[in-house]
Amino acid sequence: MTQDPLVIFTPSGKRGRFAKGTPVLTAARQLGVDLDSVCGGRGICSKCQVQPSYGDFSKHGVSVADDALSDRNAVEDRYDRVRGLKPGRRLGCQATVQGDVVIDVPPESQVHRQVVRKAASDKPITMDPATRLYYVEVAEPDMHDPTGDLQRLAAALRDQWGIADVTLSPALLPSLQKHLRKGGWTVTAALHTPHTGATPQIIALWPGLHEGGIYGLAIDLGSTTVAAHLTNLDTGAVIASSGIMNPQIRFGEDLMSRVSYAMMNPGGEVEMTRAVREAIDTLTQDIARDGGIDPELIVETVFVCNPVMHHLLLGIDPVELGQAPFALATSDALNLSARDIGLQALPHSAQIYVLPCIAGHVGADAAAVALSERPDQAQELTLIVDVGTNAEILLGDGTRTLACSSPTGPAFEGAQISSGQRAAPGAIEAIRIDPVTKEPRFRVIGCDLWSDEDGFVLQTAQTGITGICGSGIIEAVAEMRIAGLLDASGLIGGAEATGTARCQPTGRTHEYLIHDGTAEGGPRITVTQGDIRAIQLAKSALYAGARLLMDTRGTDTVAQVVLAGAFGAHISPLHAMVLGMIPDVPLDRVTSAGNAAGHGARIALCSLTARREIEALVHKITKVETAIEPKFQEHFVNANAIPHATDPFPNLLTEVTLPDVSFNAGTEDKGGRRRRRR
Amino acid sequence: MTQDPLVIFTPSGKRGRFAKGTPVLTAARQLGVDLDSVCGGRGICSKCQVQPSYGDFSKHGVSVADDALSDRNAVEDRYDRVRGLKPGRRLGCQATVQGDVVIDVPPESQVHRQVVRKAASDKPITMDPATRLYYVEVAEPDMHDPTGDLQRLAAALRDQWGIADVTLSPALLPSLQKHLRKGGWTVTAALHTPHTGATPQIIALWPGLHEGGIYGLAIDLGSTTVAAHLTNLDTGAVIASSGIMNPQIRFGEDLMSRVSYAMMNPGGEVEMTRAVREAIDTLTQDIARDGGIDPELIVETVFVCNPVMHHLLLGIDPVELGQAPFALATSDALNLSARDIGLQALPHSAQIYVLPCIAGHVGADAAAVALSERPDQAQELTLIVDVGTNAEILLGDGTRTLACSSPTGPAFEGAQISSGQRAAPGAIEAIRIDPVTKEPRFRVIGCDLWSDEDGFVLQTAQTGITGICGSGIIEAVAEMRIAGLLDASGLIGGAEATGTARCQPTGRTHEYLIHDGTAEGGPRITVTQGDIRAIQLAKSALYAGARLLMDTRGTDTVAQVVLAGAFGAHISPLHAMVLGMIPDVPLDRVTSAGNAAGHGARIALCSLTARREIEALVHKITKVETAIEPKFQEHFVNANAIPHATDPFPNLLTEVTLPDVSFNAGTEDKGGRRRRRR
Repeated sequence: MTQDPLVIFTPSGKRGRFAKGTPVLTAARQLGVDLDSVCGGRGICSKCQVQPSYGDFSKHGVSVADDALSDRNAVEDRYDRVRGLKPGRRLGCQATVQGDVVIDVPPESQVHRQVVRKAASDKPITMDPATRLYYVEVAEPDMHDPTGDLQRLAAALRDQWGIADVTLSPALLPSLQKHLRKGGWTVTAALHTPHTGATPQIIALWPGLHEGGIYGLAIDLGSTTVAAHLTNLDTGAVIASSGIMNPQIRFGEDLMSRVSYAMMNPGGEVEMTRAVREAIDTLTQDIARDGGIDPELIVETVFVCNPVMHHLLLGIDPVELGQAPFALATSDALNLSARDIGLQALPHSAQIYVLPCIAGHVGADAAAVALSERPDQAQELTLIVDVGTNAEILLGDGTRTLACSSPTGPAFEGAQISSGQRAAPGAIEAIRIDPVTKEPRFRVIGCDLWSDEDGFVLQTAQTGITGICGSGIIEAVAEMRIAGLLDASGLIGGAEATGTARCQPTGRTHEYLIHDGTAEGGPRITVTQGDIRAIQLAKSALYAGARLLMDTRGTDTVAQVVLAGAFGAHISPLHAMVLGMIPDVPLDRVTSAGNAAGHGARIALCSLTARREIEALVHKITKVETAIEPKFQEHFVNANAIPHATDPFPNLLTEVTLPDVSFNAGTEDKGGRRRRRR
Repeated sequence: MTQDPLVIFTPSGKRGRFAKGTPVLTAARQLGVDLDSVCGGRGICSKCQVQPSYGDFSKHGVSVADDALSDRNAVEDRYDRVRGLKPGRRLGCQATVQGDVVIDVPPESQVHRQVVRKAASDKPITMDPATRLYYVEVAEPDMHDPTGDLQRLAAALRDQWGIADVTLSPALLPSLQKHLRKGGWTVTAALHTPHTGATPQIIALWPGLHEGGIYGLAIDLGSTTVAAHLTNLDTGAVIASSGIMNPQIRFGEDLMSRVSYAMMNPGGEVEMTRAVREAIDTLTQDIARDGGIDPELIVETVFVCNPVMHHLLLGIDPVELGQAPFALATSDALNLSARDIGLQALPHSAQIYVLPCIAGHVGADAAAVALSERPDQAQELTLIVDVGTNAEILLGDGTRTLACSSPTGPAFEGAQISSGQRAAPGAIEAIRIDPVTKEPRFRVIGCDLWSDEDGFVLQTAQTGITGICGSGIIEAVAEMRIAGLLDASGLIGGAEATGTARCQPTGRTHEYLIHDGTAEGGPRITVTQGDIRAIQLAKSALYAGARLLMDTRGTDTVAQVVLAGAFGAHISPLHAMVLGMIPDVPLDRVTSAGNAAGHGARIALCSLTARREIEALVHKITKVETAIEPKFQEHFVNANAIPHATDPFPNLLTEVTLPDVSFNAGTEDKGGRRRRRR
């Protein structure tokens, strides 16, 4: 008696013996091999493509003959003719086992395929979406055994896919019969399973085999901007990214002024909810157009946002977030439908997942950063700061993760700065000050040249030089300190003390002139003493928050710092450290995570496993409330100097030398000298 | 060592020993005694009232001393002072066990209390509603351990009620925080559990202890009228009943003309859906006002309706129901929210339960009749007919239940009858014809007198005599046959043949004059040959449907007949049988079930167990499709005569003598003579 043929799948290594004539897809399913299929083996979806290998495979202990699989059949020939099949590829549902064989499942045929990274900082995502497509052939109605079309669809899913129990989104009731008849009693159903063990819900239907894909939106709903990634839920690929201003800005620039608006204006929260939902509708339509898809194909949307935006999105008055004890209405992750939160541009039955909030001041955006950066999986103690109007701060390693938020105010975003502006063409984003001549050179957004390079004037003629943005003001303050224009207390010296006429008196203080465009009708861009104070307040708040987490953790040092947020991507780590925004670590241990919140949203969109992980992590995180910790005030006051009056990092390895200057006899300066390398 | 006191509960008979000082409520819970409580034992809801008995209880084997329970405490005194406590009553959560005691749980303190019957035909309902109230004390927010208000509410339900897992209706997110604060961190939650094992959902919230009750609507959504019962979900009491015309009548009187309207007018089904939903909104507001409650207290609504209304309510185009194979979009019971189906007058999170449909022509209304009348539990074979534009017919006993619907047309409702009209004041609803003089006497709706009694003219002066309604035309035709004015084929004889000038020629046939009001400007009310034919068609259809079920069941006789429907309540069983509408059974075996569909809706509203039972029964029912059964046509043709040419019921016990007359030489009359008693 001869044995049945041996079938070995790579890369999984799973193997088993199957009777001659067994389809490869059947063998894969019985072995639990990760091989995709939407049509369930009918040779029409092509998701189950495999690559058989022939020849001698000593490492697998088999020799594969040329006839180890059945010959290509008519279905495969037709598929190749119409769509094209890569050389050597077979359809797993058509090719049958005839002898010992080694079969590779290429990445694009795996259900849980990994999404290729877009940026170096992006962690790869293993696809495990909550919504998947199933093609079924549904029994036609029979007067002698009358059952509803839905019941026969459910029976088809049970019989053809082993899915025992499904519900239909009520929003699909009106179209169910039309789709079934248009598809000739075949239909593709998008089944959404919010978590393991939940009853799957049919949230979209298409006649016949749906080949247009299904999509998800990952939305980072910020106070100032709303950014979205339109993602293919099959491949994980981002097919369009788009942003829009948050129209709530007209109710208040920062979050607390929006909370105040709701407090002062009865119904104000309803206005703000309407505004943000309309903006999301607009963004949805825009991004679908950019991606060239029908918005009806968007079956899921993930939101990450700070607590105030979280509540306003859900239609909850944020008033409780504006006063102690900063109680969230709900902190756990939410599964909703688009209809539940009144989003019009998405299909009614599109599913919404909102990441959990960590605490009253630490929102789902911070959770998304945690999901993207996984401080709980860090080998060494890692500090993650997401810099915005509020800074979200996470500290963690394999043993414990802590989180807080710190009220930095909008100075880091260029607001409340005399020459400040949002990051937009014309804004100074980088600056260097010659320590000898005290002359500045700078770069503006929209031009790659420095201001002292040839062509700069020509290239910036269009945009002009309009102001200074968040990253620019941070560099300016740090550079002023490095160049000795600023003492450790943050006081700007006069022309005489600093040796440059750019330091000019204004009232009882001085300001430093970066650029005077008045001759050309442009602005006069200076850094005033008030600007320095605003940045000092912001950086002290940020630093104090980080220190508070370190205190709670019982440490004076961290091994690495990750700067997250769109703004974080533009901060120079060197300048951030000179300024004392972040604890001192070796420069090469400061990295930018880019838009970590947005990346976290995208991970949650693509992976149910990731949703469960962040939900579990958020419960385990130690929440630290800066507003009630006396130590926060202490750290805040101590962090005011540049650098700190008492340097908490004796083992600092940065190579910057800060001058030992003082422009005020009353200010003590204990700042040490450091070597500087540019 | 003395034993712990023995506690015996009546009427359950459950008993156990409990330590001295155990609250009665605690003892009841541990024994699984059905004792209600909303506040969870805090002495504020008074739901757990019990009646202890004292003295010697030989049948229980105990003697109860006067001090078997603790003395009335301050909580009970206060409750008695403020609300009043019946003599001898105690609050189960306050009174503690001190010695052997017998404690009666009065009906109103039982969770699963029985609802007292309203009408003789109403089966009692055992309360087992899907929605119940729970009062909880919720932990206040804590900055040091930040969790959402919802999470703390869920924890309270877990800790105080053992409810492990709840969700919140998204529609309640905006009001959650306000209710918690208004109630001083106490709140009453309405939890809805659609079926055993489902995660309960909070569908309503009130600050503190909610004492305003919760309510449900049982709606019978008919083609012509929409009727609702507003029911207290705690007691099961109907506190208001109301009806409204179905505004879809403007799109077609009967169901098929509405299906045609949808077929002929693109978007017509959307118009009809909007119309019926608006009508339900109006009805909801009306009935809440009638019942003196806020519509926000209506937490559940149950719908029963025929398949076409079912689809139009859900926003489904009914076109498939107008053509073979009459496929329902969905046949199983549905659990939805008011928001899902666009009902505005109900709270968004109010739950909707729609009974299952039996088949394409046999709807949720027939299922509701089955739930009310339970043919599957009948001791003897029972035929249930719900007479309307379509007749729903059920046949069953303990072994098997069958169902069909039969297209009777609207003749039974007075439509398509020359002098026909809806049942309204002025309509002739009952008629007798003297077999000797052939003179009629009749009663009209709105007057209790017969037309030959004193005062009839005066009492009907207001309404006039305007036409003949459904029950009137049935009696008229039967009486004409009994009086010899009609032969067995249904032909009206002329004046000469019948011996009365009331039989007058009109065209090639005759008509019988019931009332001539032309002198007073009123109508001339006659029964024409066309009317007889319309009634013959309708009764033949009804009879043929019943026969078809009997054929399928393999029987020639039924033991009893139940006439359901508002119209059924007015049909005279004798006349229905003379007419051959229903199979012959002893007169005392014909009963009226009143509005069985509405009663079934009310049962489903009050009892989850009943929902499961009807869902299971509907799956087991043998569905018979009249439209495709050749035997239906055969029975239909055979049933045309009055009585049947071949009498299928030789053992008939009715005491009516039908004359052996014929007004057409070509018509064979095999009708036998029967004794008649009026």
